[in-house]
Amino acid sequence: MGTVQNMLQTHPTSSQIERSVLAQCIQECYDCAAACTLCADACLGEDKLQMLVKCIRLNNDCADACIATGRILSRLNQPNWPVVRHQVQAMVAACRACAEECSQHAEMHEHCRICAEACRRCEEACNQVLKTLPVQE
Amino acid sequence: MGTVQNMLQTHPTSSQIERSVLAQCIQECYDCAAACTLCADACLGEDKLQMLVKCIRLNNDCADACIATGRILSRLNQPNWPVVRHQVQAMVAACRACAEECSQHAEMHEHCRICAEACRRCEEACNQVLKTLPVQE
Amino acid sequence: MGTVQNMLQTHPTSSQIERSVLAQCIQECYDCAAACTLCADACLGEDKLQMLVKCIRLNNDCADACIATGRILSRLNQPNWPVVRHQVQAMVAACRACAEECSQHAEMHEHCRICAEACRRCEEACNQVLKTLPVQE
Amino acid sequence: MGTVQNMLQTHPTSSQIERSVLAQCIQECYDCAAACTLCADACLGEDKLQMLVKCIRLNNDCADACIATGRILSRLNQPNWPVVRHQVQAMVAACRACAEECSQHAEMHEHCRICAEACRRCEEACNQVLKTLPVQE
Repeated sequence: MGTVQNMLQTHPTSSQIERSVLAQCIQECYDCAAACTLCADACLGEDKLQMLVKCIRLNNDCADACIATGRILSRLNQPNWPVVRHQVQAMVAACRACAEECSQHAEMHEHCRICAEACRRCEEACNQVLKTLPVQE
Repeated sequence: MGTVQNMLQTHPTSSQIERSVLAQCIQECYDCAAACTLCADACLGEDKLQMLVKCIRLNNDCADACIATGRILSRLNQPNWPVVRHQVQAMVAACRACAEECSQHAEMHEHCRICAEACRRCEEACNQVLKTLPVQE
Repeated sequence: MGTVQNMLQTHPTSSQIERSVLAQCIQECYDCAAACTLCADACLGEDKLQMLVKCIRLNNDCADACIATGRILSRLNQPNWPVVRHQVQAMVAACRACAEECSQHAEMHEHCRICAEACRRCEEACNQVLKTLPVQE
Repeated sequence: MGTVQNMLQTHPTSSQIERSVLAQCIQECYDCAAACTLCADACLGEDKLQMLVKCIRLNNDCADACIATGRILSRLNQPNWPVVRHQVQAMVAACRACAEECSQHAEMHEHCRICAEACRRCEEACNQVLKTLPVQE
């Protein structure tokens, strides 16, 4: 939490999103990106690999969306709100899908259980951001 | 166009999106990512830099969304359609916002004019994909 | 080739790398990123998946290095040459490793053959850039 | 630190890099990516923007290298050591250059001071990884 929060506090531009909510979400995006990339590779190392193709695919989708979302939310200068909102909504969809799929392997694979938790935290943090976004286009 | 199209033709998994539509969109995503990254840096090299802050910001947002979208669309195995659809919608929003901003600098800066065109092509290709996506969740 | 080349020609900052060499390399980075991402997913759709774990891994490594390298080479303003040189060298290593692995599956999987070619072209374009980079640190 | 470390502990594939060293480095890569992306945007919001062009450029280079490196290090299955080593070396170069540039603005801009620290931590973590990499090609 430290670095993102500290960086945001020293940013010269004010944000319409409360900084603690924003810091939490950016942090969760990077955390979830890390978890999903690790889960995709962990799945690739399992014996019953064929059963994990869907999981690997969603891990990778979620990691890619996380990086884009974490970066876009990190830009406070002159945001275009529809761009931000749509990207955060895409992030919610990716987190939800990945968490659901990972949950189905959670008893068998501990990495899927931990990854599902990271996705759920990221989804929740994104939903908090969506609540505070300016409504007008 | 060649590489993406050739790769898609040899992919073992069938896609519910027509392959020529998909190939076009993936290609435009990477092309637009390249254009936006170059435009952000070209803007950073202009004298009246302060006027281009919004443009740089949207260039970077659009490039990030492009990479995520191009990658997600490249995965044919067991897609989660809401994830795909939301990410492509986010891409449309980013392309539109970046094209609009770049257009305002197009007379002054040729790189903004070319970038706006790349964004418009990507937006159009994304809209073609959205038309062919399965409707059910 | 079009977009990258046109963007570079309108960039206000001069580059110590000849623009046609640079344009070729940036274009090959994105092309190779697209091919590798598609090859990783195509491999994931094959029956004898277990044999392709190394290939998938190197596809993903190469795609990640491609995006970083393509972006870094797109920045002409005030480059730090050791940063550029090391990243292009990392790209060469990734292209070489991925091309070698893909080549071993080229007779069986057409997507691996096409991907290996994209990696070879990218490696060659990176080597052309390395020849023209300023030598001093 | 939690998520990456926990994920690595449950990964089915053994790594030749000690897991605590690896976890630290992956975590610092994502942390540094977040800091650099935020610093680039914070610089873009400062009044004396023209003086910060080099900083913004290196922030972005470093963020891109961080994402590639963090992802490549997260893959334990069948690594190609030259690929890993070259990418980590590129990361060291990017961290060093960005830390040096940010340090020059650290008294004026607190975000540059914090970003320089994140780069230094990432550089140090990368050097620890380089020490433990298998020497043979």
